[in-house]
This record gives sequence, structure tokens and C-alpha cells, in this order.
Amino acid sequence: MADRVFKKISVTGCSTESYEKAIEAAVEKASESLRGLAWFEVKEFRGGLGSNGNIEWQATIDVAFKID
Amino acid sequence: MADRVFKKISVTGCSTESYEKAIEAAVEKASESLRGLAWFEVKEFRGGLGSNGNIEWQATIDVAFKID
Amino acid sequence: MADRVFKKISVTGCSTESYEKAIEAAVEKASESLRGLAWFEVKEFRGGLGSNGNIEWQATIDVAFKID
Amino acid sequence: MADRVFKKISVTGCSTESYEKAIEAAVEKASESLRGLAWFEVKEFRGGLGSNGNIEWQATIDVAFKID
Amino acid sequence: MADRVFKKISVTGCSTESYEKAIEAAVEKASESLRGLAWFEVKEFRGGLGSNGNIEWQATIDVAFKID
Amino acid sequence: MADRVFKKISVTGCSTESYEKAIEAAVEKASESLRGLAWFEVKEFRGGLGSNGNIEWQATIDVAFKID
Amino acid sequence: MADRVFKKISVTGCSTESYEKAIEAAVEKASESLRGLAWFEVKEFRGGLGSNGNIEWQATIDVAFKID
Amino acid sequence: MADRVFKKISVTGCSTESYEKAIEAAVEKASESLRGLAWFEVKEFRGGLGSNGNIEWQATIDVAFKID
Amino acid sequence: MADRVFKKISVTGCSTESYEKAIEAAVEKASESLRGLAWFEVKEFRGGLGSNGNIEWQATIDVAFKID
Amino acid sequence: MADRVFKKISVTGCSTESYEKAIEAAVEKASESLRGLAWFEVKEFRGGLGSNGNIEWQATIDVAFKID
Amino acid sequence: MADRVFKKISVTGCSTESYEKAIEAAVEKASESLRGLAWFEVKEFRGGLGSNGNIEWQATIDVAFKID
Amino acid sequence: MADRVFKKISVTGCSTESYEKAIEAAVEKASESLRGLAWFEVKEFRGGLGSNGNIEWQATIDVAFKID
Repeated sequence: MADRVFKKISVTGCSTESYEKAIEAAVEKASESLRGLAWFEVKEFRGGLGSNGNIEWQATIDVAFKID
Repeated sequence: MADRVFKKISVTGCSTESYEKAIEAAVEKASESLRGLAWFEVKEFRGGLGSNGNIEWQATIDVAFKID
Repeated sequence: MADRVFKKISVTGCSTESYEKAIEAAVEKASESLRGLAWFEVKEFRGGLGSNGNIEWQATIDVAFKID
Repeated sequence: MADRVFKKISVTGCSTESYEKAIEAAVEKASESLRGLAWFEVKEFRGGLGSNGNIEWQATIDVAFKID
Repeated sequence: MADRVFKKISVTGCSTESYEKAIEAAVEKASESLRGLAWFEVKEFRGGLGSNGNIEWQATIDVAFKID
Repeated sequence: MADRVFKKISVTGCSTESYEKAIEAAVEKASESLRGLAWFEVKEFRGGLGSNGNIEWQATIDVAFKID
Repeated sequence: MADRVFKKISVTGCSTESYEKAIEAAVEKASESLRGLAWFEVKEFRGGLGSNGNIEWQATIDVAFKID
Repeated sequence: MADRVFKKISVTGCSTESYEKAIEAAVEKASESLRGLAWFEVKEFRGGLGSNGNIEWQATIDVAFKID
Repeated sequence: MADRVFKKISVTGCSTESYEKAIEAAVEKASESLRGLAWFEVKEFRGGLGSNGNIEWQATIDVAFKID
Repeated sequence: MADRVFKKISVTGCSTESYEKAIEAAVEKASESLRGLAWFEVKEFRGGLGSNGNIEWQATIDVAFKID
Repeated sequence: MADRVFKKISVTGCSTESYEKAIEAAVEKASESLRGLAWFEVKEFRGGLGSNGNIEWQATIDVAFKID
Repeated sequence: MADRVFKKISVTGCSTESYEKAIEAAVEKASESLRGLAWFEVKEFRGGLGSNGNIEWQATIDVAFKID
């Protein structure tokens, strides 16, 4: 097995529905410019609180992709 | 822009449905006595396990609100 | 009240739906061989990214159970 | 089971005897103004050193209580 | 020496000048409603970036005060 | 010296007296089913607060034992 | 509100004056190639010590910017 | 893909040669009683110092294996 | 001395030999597209365990390089 | 008030009685060669387990003292 | 290049002006008895609050110096 | 068993070969001025990157030795 190398980038996704949707938004955006996405690690969960009581779910992940 | 100051309080919400519901319960309770809620940070996710196999989702967050 | 002692084990559950489902899978598997499950603590959230864009939600928890 | 919400406050207790006494002082003071104390988490142990060689045991805990 | 008890609150101050000014704003606001402020611990330094290139220095501190 | 290998398990002990007694309870229970206990590391100190003002001291330790 | 996504990069700025100047240098350099800078988080403060007694203030920050 | 569940155990390996040898000793010992070993995470590197100047390399890892 | 600015990227290298070889693979790959590499910081050591008992040593590092 | 400077050293004390006694042993030993001891911070609690079931309480503290 | 070895000591500096001045006081004091100071790492920022509203800025750093 | 006390110092060793060699350099240097070295704990692994592609392996350890 040849030596493999991955790069990780940090992305914060936001959603008005759930943390899973926030992560999906982050992954989808990352996949637009990167190939070989392999895994991600959750680094932080936060939330924005609007004056109307709505919550914006915010998830920061490190996304790893293989470097050819 | 005038100097702004926020205070943070630590709240643990519980729900039998999901972590998002647990956080919403915590935020809703905090909003009963505080105005100007701005954001929150997730500090811990835990869970209670009942003898019937049910899970109580428990989320501890720091909620920040603006001090006038 | 007599002195109580709990043991904790570390389990990683996976799901294609959500982190809650991943945790439920981990708890269900732990309950097959252990009695007296009491609580769990989330230690890490990660995710696997398939070539088809699907996400595998991966949750690592410490599950505590009472030792008789 | 209805959704439950707890609030946590941070308190530092001091004692010339032991860390347990320092925590008891912190809990006792918190119980003077709060009802429904449920649990606490130790965050830090420190100590003050007097010129006479005496030690002041200092314990910082997060005390959780139920919000009705 | 009688047993002493301190309470800590978490405050985020903001300033357009420096982190020291952000902390001073947080301390000054805390001192409006609390007596016996004793010390603080820096928990986080962040910053807001305006479209005009200006920086808002944001400091989160835990402020401790003596409970009588 | 031959290569040695140790395994660690996580145990939470409880006591109504002190953290040392809570740890002793955890060690004693672990020693019932394991041989070769070598050392432990304290991971967390918490406490339960009863309605009568009593404190249950809770200590979580990782106990290491030699694998033959 | 549409789902928003931010990317974070890690930058270390240096200055012979202060940590604020070191951060400003890091932000200014980041802004040369990136648009939509939104916030930053301080990750580490270090310093270089020259043989002449001078200090180089070194600040490492994570800078977040919006991805269109 | 069916839901997968892994269990992690904590093992400390020792070697007089290197950290890699210490980890190999820990993995080899774990594989004697467990099937389906999948990955490990290094938690701590320490070392013992003998009176003769020799070093015992000590590595603590969490080893994960699939539960059928 | 003019103000200097460095950027850090996160890279995971893998090797079947040792952690040093895994890091060298990560650094070599990073040097293919970046100039001015200055230092790196180890963030995590993990390992993959093959069914044949082989170990893939995995090292995640933050690599810093000077921005002109 | 003139600028004050403190130095901290790391000391591990051991006792067969309690963590407080272990810390007192560490402080007493430090005071034999240092003047102006001011405070300490607990960094780690561990324990040694003898074959006879006895526990050696081990406390690692950072002790600060004023530099004249 | 011969193998180099550095030692680090922990120093807390105080100042009534700023964190940079507190660090400079710590470095200056360390340089009185040590040669070859090379770099420092900030470990903690705290502050003392006087009854007159004044702030004492307290910075704890690890200072590294080369051992010949 | 009499109460034992250990002191820990922080040392950074460097090597052009491996992390083990970097640690050996740090231990060897510490042993020149200290007796009773007992154990060490790895605190950080870093590396220097030369313009020629060479790596300087840098290991920071806390070395403990018994105080008589």
C-alpha cells in the first residue's frame, strides 16, 4: 500500500433545521471545489438566536480529502 | 460602535426526542427571564438511560445575552 | 445509601440517518451484553463520506452501567 | 416525562481543612439562595499558601439546580 | 480565617481598541451590579471583522466576586 | 525486561464520606474481578446533592492492570 | 435565510509592538487574497526572544470567511 | 449499509526500543483476545527511566474493534 | 524586522513504517505545492489495523509556511 | 504597586493517607528550598496500587513563589 | 547541526498597564538569572481587581532557554 | 513507606533522526545535573523544516526526579 496523504480544511455550516443539516451544507459546499472527500470531525456546535426566537444551528467540522 | 457587553449563563436542557429539542428547551426557558439572547455554545452532550430503554437527550449550553 | 460503583465502556455507533440514531445503535448494542445501563457521555462526533455523497454519522460515547 | 431544564452556576469555596470542606462551604452558600440543587462538577482545585505555612484549600465547582 | 465563598460569572466585553479595553468594559459592566469583585480569568479571545476592515476585539472572562 | 502491557478500565465510585472513600470503593470493586492492579488516574470529580443537603462524592478513575 | 457556509484558515501574525498588531498583520495579509472575512478566534499567543532583549509578539488565529 | 458498532478499549504497551514497538506490543496483546481490530488512537506517550539510563517507551492507545 | 505572517495547513500522512515516515510523507506532499515551509506541530497520532495484523501509522500535523 | 513576578515549579507529592496529605508533603518539601510560596494549582491526581491493596495517593501541583 | 536542548520555566508577570507589559516583566526577571532565552508560550491570562477599580494584568508564560 | 516527593522540569530535545532520539537528548542533558530521574511525560511533538528539506524532530517532555 503506497503512502497516502490527506489534507483537512475547517468549514462552518449553518442551518435552520438541525446540526445534521448544518454539516450537510458544509460538506456539500466543500465538495463543490474538492475531490476525494473521505471523513470529517466535528469541532464545535454553536447556535445563533434571532429576535423572533428562531435558532440557526452552526456546526464547525474539519473535512479531510485525499491528495493525489 | 459603542462597546458592547454580553453575559453568558450555563443551562442544561433535556428532551426525549433529540439534542436539538433539548437545546430548544434550554433556550426557551432562558428566554422567559432574559432579553437580548444572542448566541449559544454547546458545552456537553450526555444522555440518561431509563430501565425501559428510553433515552433522555441532555445538552448543556452557554447562552449569551446582551447587557444594556 | 450503600456505596455504588459504575463501570464505563467506550462505544462508537454509526448510522446513515443522524447522530441520535448512531447513539441509539451504540446503546442498543451495549444493552445486549450489559445490565443496569445508567447514562452516557458523548466523546466525539465524526462522519464518513462515501463517494456517492452519503454521510455515515459516527458517535463515540462512554456508557456507564452499575456493577452489582 | 416533561422536558427538564437545569441552570449551572460557578462557585469557589475555601476551607482550611480539606477539599471536601471547601466544596461543602460552596454548596451551603449556594443553597441559601437557590432551591432544587441537583449535582455539581469539580472544575479546579487550587490552594493559598500563608506565610505561616497554612494551606487554604480552594475548590471551584459548577452547581446545577432545576428551573421550575 | 472564616470560610470564604466566591461566585464566578462569564462576561464578554467588546472594544474597537484592544483586548485590555474589551476586558475593562466587561469588568466595568459587571461592577455596576456586583460588589466585591476579586479577580478574573480570560477564557477566550475572538474578534469581529467589519466590511471596512475594522476589528472588534472580543474578550470573554470569568469574573469572581465574594459572596457575603 | 520483557515488553509489558497494561489494560485500563474506567470506573466511577461513590461515597457519602470523601473522594478518597469513593476511589477506594471503585478500586475495591475492580479488584474483585481483576488481578494485577497497578495504578489509577483520576478523570473527574462530581457530586450528587440530595434534598436533605447530603453530598454523594463521585470519583471517576481509570484503573490499570497488567495483562499476563 | 439561506444556509450559509464559512471556511476557516489558520494564520500566524508577528509584530514587534503588541498582540493586537500581530493579529492585525495576520488579518491584513489574509484579506489580500480572501473576501468576506467575518470573524477570527485566537488559538495561541507565543513570543520570540532576540539576543538584544527584543520581543516578537506572535499570534495564531483562525480567520473565518463566507463562501459564496 | 447496516449500522455498525465498535467498542474501544484502552491499552498501554511498553518497549525498550521505540514508541512504535510499544504500540505493536499493545496491539498484539489486544489481538490475542479480540477479533475485528479496526483502528487505534494514541492517547499518551510516557517513559520510564531506569537507574542505568535505559528508557522504557510507554504508549497508551485506545483500540477499536467491531462488535458483531 | 518587518512583520512576518505564516499560514498553517492541516495534513495527515500515512506510512507502514513509523510515525516519522508518516510525517515525512505529509511534509513532502505539502512541499510540492507550497514554498517557505517553516515548522510543523503534531496534532494527532492514530493507526489503521489491517486484517493481516499490519499497522498503518497515521500522523496529523499542522504545517506552517511563510506568506510573502 | 510595583510589578510583581512569580515562578512556578511542578511538584508531585505522595501519601498513604489522602490527597491533602500528598499536597502538604509536596508543599513542605518545596518550602525547604524556596521562600515566598504564594499559591498552588492541582494539575493531576493519580494513585499507586500495591499488591496488598494499599493506595498511595499522588498529587501533582504547580507551586508559585514570588521572585524578589 | 548538533542536537540542541532547551529548558522551559513557568513565570507569572504582573503589570498595571497591559498584558504585554506583564510579559515583559516576566521575561526581564527571567533574563536576570538565565542566558540564551529563545521563546515563550502564553499559558494563561488572568487579572486582579482592586477595590479602587484598578486592574492588575497577570500573564503566565513558559520561557524556553538553550542549555549549553 | 515514607512520603515521597518528585519535582518535574520541562525540557525540549531536538534531533535530526527521530522523536526517540530527541527525547534521549533531552533526558541525557537533564541527567547531567540531576539525580534520581524517574519518568517523563511527552507534552508536545513539533518539527523544524529546513530549506534543504531536512526535518529537525523536537520533543518537549516533563522529566520527574525524586527529591531527597
